[in-house]
Amino acid sequence: MAVYTEVTDDALRKFAQNLDLGEVLSCKGIAEGVENSNFQLVTEKSTYILTLYEKRVDPKDLPFFLGLLEHLEAKGVACPKPIRSPNGEMIHTLSGKPAAVVTFLSGMWPKRIQMHHVSELGTALAHMHVAGADFGLSRKNTLSVQGWRPILDACKGRADEVIKGVTEELEQDLDDLESLWPHDLPTGIIHADLFPDNVFFRGEKLSGLIDFYFACNDLLAYDIAVCLNAWCFELDGSFNVTKAKKMLRAYGKVRPLSAAEIEALPLLARGAAMRFLLTRLYDWLNTPEGALVTPKDPRKYLQKLRFHRGLEGPGAYGL
Amino acid sequence: MAVYTEVTDDALRKFAQNLDLGEVLSCKGIAEGVENSNFQLVTEKSTYILTLYEKRVDPKDLPFFLGLLEHLEAKGVACPKPIRSPNGEMIHTLSGKPAAVVTFLSGMWPKRIQMHHVSELGTALAHMHVAGADFGLSRKNTLSVQGWRPILDACKGRADEVIKGVTEELEQDLDDLESLWPHDLPTGIIHADLFPDNVFFRGEKLSGLIDFYFACNDLLAYDIAVCLNAWCFELDGSFNVTKAKKMLRAYGKVRPLSAAEIEALPLLARGAAMRFLLTRLYDWLNTPEGALVTPKDPRKYLQKLRFHRGLEGPGAYGL
Repeated sequence: MAVYTEVTDDALRKFAQNLDLGEVLSCKGIAEGVENSNFQLVTEKSTYILTLYEKRVDPKDLPFFLGLLEHLEAKGVACPKPIRSPNGEMIHTLSGKPAAVVTFLSGMWPKRIQMHHVSELGTALAHMHVAGADFGLSRKNTLSVQGWRPILDACKGRADEVIKGVTEELEQDLDDLESLWPHDLPTGIIHADLFPDNVFFRGEKLSGLIDFYFACNDLLAYDIAVCLNAWCFELDGSFNVTKAKKMLRAYGKVRPLSAAEIEALPLLARGAAMRFLLTRLYDWLNTPEGALVTPKDPRKYLQKLRFHRGLEGPGAYGL
Repeated sequence: MAVYTEVTDDALRKFAQNLDLGEVLSCKGIAEGVENSNFQLVTEKSTYILTLYEKRVDPKDLPFFLGLLEHLEAKGVACPKPIRSPNGEMIHTLSGKPAAVVTFLSGMWPKRIQMHHVSELGTALAHMHVAGADFGLSRKNTLSVQGWRPILDACKGRADEVIKGVTEELEQDLDDLESLWPHDLPTGIIHADLFPDNVFFRGEKLSGLIDFYFACNDLLAYDIAVCLNAWCFELDGSFNVTKAKKMLRAYGKVRPLSAAEIEALPLLARGAAMRFLLTRLYDWLNTPEGALVTPKDPRKYLQKLRFHRGLEGPGAYGL
């Protein structure tokens, strides 16, 4: 939950006027997004999300993030569309911060994942990968395999406070991941953080993908691996192979996976588990008590990592 | 900013169905209201505010608060209207908490108070007082004069950490207030917390009064005194007599003040300053570091109290 910057009514009125949005009817800070200040902005014309970018988003990345949304939306992906000013700008300024206004997507994110969710997700993910193929800008994935060891190193000495013996266990995993990580699979634009709270549904239909602030260029199958972890484990930690199968089948109907991609899935899923385990571990160790944001428990992701490590092949995903 | 309780999509869907609100299009936690969890709920039919009542609101008070809104709205006051279920209930249950759904009011609260704001406010406050006259329920003001000394006592020993010598100064004020407090002025339903962030405007017109969770029965002129403090001081601490005059004149056109009410205003305004000074002082001393809510600086209200204490009569308010 996050509103870090106050916006005055006068400033907002002028801002909306400059963007030709009509009279402002309301603007309420919303308790979503940890990195930025977000507002649900209602004007005479429509409803929008207004975002003020705080420290954790690098302004240099904004042309990529906003350009990507515009590109994907134009290709039919259900994602927010940035509003350009009359002179063509997508990055505006409000209360001294870089700001963007995007169209509002209706829908709610699913708190309990059911079968129809994962098949809709697979389809939408594949469509997004296809639609991103001809996007002109690129952004490196700073949280891919080469970025993991520095995070573990930054936790060192203290990671074992959270989970006994975890440093040694993860160092061995990192050795494997670094030496075996594939470099010849299809690449493109990936979302890289497509958890259920970033996917909206209306009834049984997917109605929107949001929060592209980790989007980057990387292995497309790695995005699938992130989703296997985020959508196909049950609350008790068990892996639901039926959900995985449904998701992968739906994906494959839009963008068929190569044999090499399928073969690599267990390693990619182990890597995806490592990525979220490490950032959660780091946040767990570095969040002051009483902070605004409750850090997520890293232990769940260790379970997922161990599951994928123990597999003999992609058959465990129903393929 | 506050969302203390998570609401699942399934539960919300059923809840909206039971209230006959149509399909839920979105539901976002909003960063407003310290006491409860608030959501901006958009359905096929309309936009609403959904509130889950957390610990600090006594469920026994809900029939008063919600009944009052319904009563005032029916009389033409621009305030939220509670949605009743088909069997007539205004207090619902969601995620195990008492819950209410009220109509959404458009508008923004003014961050910089201008002349048109205070005259609109005066008119609306008087209309609210008149409209409340025949409301059937009542609620005691636990934060009126008899409730102040216990708060100062609870701060004792530590109040001087915030402002040197303040305990002695306020004890003398309390002596005055307790002995001089009027008991024969017109009473009725008051809002008791009508700060600018509880008053919405569209352009120059007042479009809504919100947050009635301090509403109670008390001296009507005390509500005016709260507004004198909240709306008529400038950022530098100076009192803007032109704003006070505008507000009081606009109020008087709808509900003329008696000579006794006018005479009592300096004492009531001193009391109103005491009430907010004390609760802010208490919160300042009792908010843990790093808490979600930043406590408000009590010092401003000491300035206001001293201003009213120093007056020779209500002429200082432009009357």
